[in-house]
Amino acid sequence: MRDFSQDHRWLSINTATVRKQQGAEVPLSRIIDQCAERGIRAISPWRDQVAAAGLEATAHQLRAHGMALSGYCRGGFFPAADAAGLRAALDDNRRAIDEAKTLDAACLVLVVGALPGALEGTPHYTDLARARSEVFDGIAASLEYARQVGMPLAIEPLHPMQAADRACINTLEQALDICDALDANKTGALGVALDVYHVWWDPKLAQQIARAGKERLLAYHVCDWRLPTRDLLSDRGMMGDGVIELKKIRQWVEAAGFEGYAEVEIFSALDWWQRTGEDTLDTCITRHRTAV
Amino acid sequence: MRDFSQDHRWLSINTATVRKQQGAEVPLSRIIDQCAERGIRAISPWRDQVAAAGLEATAHQLRAHGMALSGYCRGGFFPAADAAGLRAALDDNRRAIDEAKTLDAACLVLVVGALPGALEGTPHYTDLARARSEVFDGIAASLEYARQVGMPLAIEPLHPMQAADRACINTLEQALDICDALDANKTGALGVALDVYHVWWDPKLAQQIARAGKERLLAYHVCDWRLPTRDLLSDRGMMGDGVIELKKIRQWVEAAGFEGYAEVEIFSALDWWQRTGEDTLDTCITRHRTAV
Repeated sequence: MRDFSQDHRWLSINTATVRKQQGAEVPLSRIIDQCAERGIRAISPWRDQVAAAGLEATAHQLRAHGMALSGYCRGGFFPAADAAGLRAALDDNRRAIDEAKTLDAACLVLVVGALPGALEGTPHYTDLARARSEVFDGIAASLEYARQVGMPLAIEPLHPMQAADRACINTLEQALDICDALDANKTGALGVALDVYHVWWDPKLAQQIARAGKERLLAYHVCDWRLPTRDLLSDRGMMGDGVIELKKIRQWVEAAGFEGYAEVEIFSALDWWQRTGEDTLDTCITRHRTAV
Repeated sequence: MRDFSQDHRWLSINTATVRKQQGAEVPLSRIIDQCAERGIRAISPWRDQVAAAGLEATAHQLRAHGMALSGYCRGGFFPAADAAGLRAALDDNRRAIDEAKTLDAACLVLVVGALPGALEGTPHYTDLARARSEVFDGIAASLEYARQVGMPLAIEPLHPMQAADRACINTLEQALDICDALDANKTGALGVALDVYHVWWDPKLAQQIARAGKERLLAYHVCDWRLPTRDLLSDRGMMGDGVIELKKIRQWVEAAGFEGYAEVEIFSALDWWQRTGEDTLDTCITRHRTAV
């Protein structure tokens, strides 16, 4: 396993971690500068932040800093109430793939979606198998375009507590089954974004990480599971402040061949989003060296 | 599949559903009477309620009403900080088995426990594999006694969002693997309590229910998954008020051979525990006939 204790060259910051600082939204350009000032070599930004900052301007700023993208957040949300909605989702995913390519991202992360309308509290249907089928078809269609463009797609299995409203792919095994069905030869075009927050509890985690192998492990996200967890979405902990066995999982991931960034993604409305970006980023660096 | 629309003979009430009425704790004897008044033929009470009401008094009241126990809540919580803690947990589980026998319960439900101390916010260790190993050993030891007494043990897989603090058995597959290891001949001594709230999201649910079969399906719990879910423990919905495909899952369960009660277990600090017991129980009856 790589030694992270001496530096933070393999640290990436998912910009959701510092998109709010002291409770207020911060522009992407400022986040990029804050990361560059600290020698952070990679980030993973969100589409809405890039749209607000401008795609070309962001690409330019990243190049100026020599900063890489460990991923681009996010494509997905494939299921829809009707055929028009399904088509619109595919179009939107094409745009996301193009943006990811412009930004030279390592992969486009897919939060695949679940029951359409559930996020707004009014699901159009509750047939989970249908949602999963629409997700499968959506990934298949997007993969075709992504292959042409040369942008790897990374399916992110989400925690089962988000199965209704955000993603109906909820285990690594399930994600890998889809990868095997759509990219049997492990070409590198389709894989997974493995976020410890979503999968740490899984009794089959070690086995499935080994199954995934280098070709499927396209991104690795870290944070921690707080006790107690006060919210299903926005109460993630800083690495070292919870119960996830981060070093054990990284050992599995690296034994499977992963050599990329450990990307910090912390949604924390009650804690880290209330602090300064400097505080949060400096803590990410420290914890990267000690806890990841 | 059985027709539930005409009566509620297969309705059971887990007493957690009405242990608080209009915000206040209600004695078990009152809950039993409220259920009996409504022709509810079975309940599943909690140990602390039985202890408060008296074991013999409760057994007597249940016999007087001809009321069955679809299960007894709960044994488990096997992992501990040290050897003395592990022994104490085994002793406590023996007592739970004896109580279940006195009450003539269909099974003792096991919420197996997870990282010791996590429920209090201070885990003694974070080694999830160790917790799972201690759970396995604890079930094995308890099963030996339970077989002598003739009390089936029902492992309840809990939702992965409760993996750190309440139960580190988090999928039906994982529970059934343990059953197969400890009771290979499917004697009926060891099985599962299947609560839709914990397992509805599982992509392998139908497959694993079929695998479980009649011998392993010892209890079936229903409620619903609310949108949004505002708390990880106490925000369950009434059947029909959420997104769980209750009829589809019951079809799978009955196709596998289950013929027992549909037990309503709703933790609902914000909603149902604020209502009268009459309102909650009457709604359980209605929804049992229409939504389960």
